Amino acid sequence: MPLEALRSDTTPPGLHYVLTHFDIPFIDAEHWHLWIGGAVQRSFELSLRALLRAPSITLPVTLECAGNGRSLLRPRPLSQPWVLEGVGTAVWTGVPLAYLLTRAGVEDDAVEVVFTGADAGSQGGVAQQYARSLPIEEALRPDVVLAYRMNGADLPPQHGYPLRLVVPGWYGMASVKWLTSIKVLTKPYDGFQQAVAYRYQHDAEDPGTPVTWIKVRSLMVPPGVPDFFTRSRILPPGPVMLTGRAWSGQGAVQRVDVGIDGKWAAAHLEHPAAPFAWCAWSMPWVADPGEHELSCRATDASGAVQPLEPEWNYQGMGNNVVQRIKVSVA
Amino acid sequence: MPLEALRSDTTPPGLHYVLTHFDIPFIDAEHWHLWIGGAVQRSFELSLRALLRAPSITLPVTLECAGNGRSLLRPRPLSQPWVLEGVGTAVWTGVPLAYLLTRAGVEDDAVEVVFTGADAGSQGGVAQQYARSLPIEEALRPDVVLAYRMNGADLPPQHGYPLRLVVPGWYGMASVKWLTSIKVLTKPYDGFQQAVAYRYQHDAEDPGTPVTWIKVRSLMVPPGVPDFFTRSRILPPGPVMLTGRAWSGQGAVQRVDVGIDGKWAAAHLEHPAAPFAWCAWSMPWVADPGEHELSCRATDASGAVQPLEPEWNYQGMGNNVVQRIKVSVA
Repeated sequence: MPLEALRSDTTPPGLHYVLTHFDIPFIDAEHWHLWIGGAVQRSFELSLRALLRAPSITLPVTLECAGNGRSLLRPRPLSQPWVLEGVGTAVWTGVPLAYLLTRAGVEDDAVEVVFTGADAGSQGGVAQQYARSLPIEEALRPDVVLAYRMNGADLPPQHGYPLRLVVPGWYGMASVKWLTSIKVLTKPYDGFQQAVAYRYQHDAEDPGTPVTWIKVRSLMVPPGVPDFFTRSRILPPGPVMLTGRAWSGQGAVQRVDVGIDGKWAAAHLEHPAAPFAWCAWSMPWVADPGEHELSCRATDASGAVQPLEPEWNYQGMGNNVVQRIKVSVA
Repeated sequence: MPLEALRSDTTPPGLHYVLTHFDIPFIDAEHWHLWIGGAVQRSFELSLRALLRAPSITLPVTLECAGNGRSLLRPRPLSQPWVLEGVGTAVWTGVPLAYLLTRAGVEDDAVEVVFTGADAGSQGGVAQQYARSLPIEEALRPDVVLAYRMNGADLPPQHGYPLRLVVPGWYGMASVKWLTSIKVLTKPYDGFQQAVAYRYQHDAEDPGTPVTWIKVRSLMVPPGVPDFFTRSRILPPGPVMLTGRAWSGQGAVQRVDVGIDGKWAAAHLEHPAAPFAWCAWSMPWVADPGEHELSCRATDASGAVQPLEPEWNYQGMGNNVVQRIKVSVA
């Protein structure tokens, strides 16, 4: 998502970030079915038509790639080289996962639910379909949705057509696309994307800890206009409204501070459209001639605050370091 | 555009390539006007509403970035690091440019028409709005369109909302987005994007020759599934249908040859939906176990054929070298 799209409450079609581990599968929805089974009383299959008849909810959700900010780490971990653009907000419509799990009847000894997509390939030498699990208590949250519409239209192929999971508050890897099956488990899932990928690790041998909720972050719409090669910003002197967005999966955003050449002041903060949608912030600035560095830094209800320096980890996950924008005012 | 999207006649929303020199301008269409003037008898301004009332045409067009293939050159020219994904096909609807130019009354000594977008920034030390010209005879072609719809919907912001030029057959830099003015000139335009950028140059000092028409190219949908890091392909043994697309701005595609480990054979070729839309090709292959290299190579009606080795130039323009795909069959 180009950062100028931060001005929109809902990210315009085609500008929401996309990460595909493997290829985008192009699925014939007529012959597609979702299977729900495992540790349940009644396993069943559903066509897309049947899903469209089930009760639905619609909610705005900010999704962010767990690798967003990876390119700002030194040495740079090898994977998708996101700078800061791996984020977006969409309005999702679909069936609450809890409704279908309740219909299936989750067994008492269930601990996790694993979601498998139609996207396939090899990673770390392991042939696999993309699959991730959620703890059973997360899977039963009322706002976790099996989405078949995005911003009022069918899902585009790259966002998981015909059906995807959306887990508000979690980094994007949890929101499995191109869903084919949902299986309730009585022991933790140990597939590649759970046990090997998406972990905060010190080094390749460290088993690490799992990547889960989105860490608090704020971003600024870069003011002025860009220089083509450096993407540094050029701005005339005078008043300018600095604006941006902030979000967290771990508690509501409580404040955003804006830094002008290292001097911080609180921005005006608006209410988000939903608990896990980003909120808008703004702060006026009178730009005086010269070189400046602009930053923004959010704090959430858990007390978490964005770090001023990046916190390196082996896979380059969850780097929520404050954004720094170089601006030439002339 | 991820290459698996080559399977679609029309590139799905959000998968068509996008190149923005500067930021995407977010334009209020209510207050937007298009100005047409210069060497014309009657200069005028048009609102979007007035444009929507003018005669319209709808046509599919394959657009490709002039820098597509740049990352395959050594040494790699500095700019947008496209591998092969800078292409897409959309159905554009809008007013023929010739209709509005005729209404304005082009003067007899007109030689070019310059198109200016709302996107602004600095490039090569020059503050500018993005602007490009066309020779008057190209501007008067009946299929050059001022498009306000893409695939039946309003233009998305990143594709030029509310109005863009679409020049079928030319590399994408000619199809100026976020149009604000159209000026007829009696001498050639010498702005930055015409005289400095988008030229085939031997080195920085070479004035070079202008980038214009799209060179012949074919691409293959990568068969099988990818390895996450290397993006090399993994495929089971047995029959597989190799498919792809081919296009040229310089004459209809006349043949596509598919190379299996350097041995070439002619593919089946379908008719394109329009003169400057890509055409589909296919060829069955029986994959036998081992490592293979697949290629495709198109020839157009001008006799032009894709080179087997890249032809380096300073800006990395128009590199239509044949695609090579490494496949492991096991």
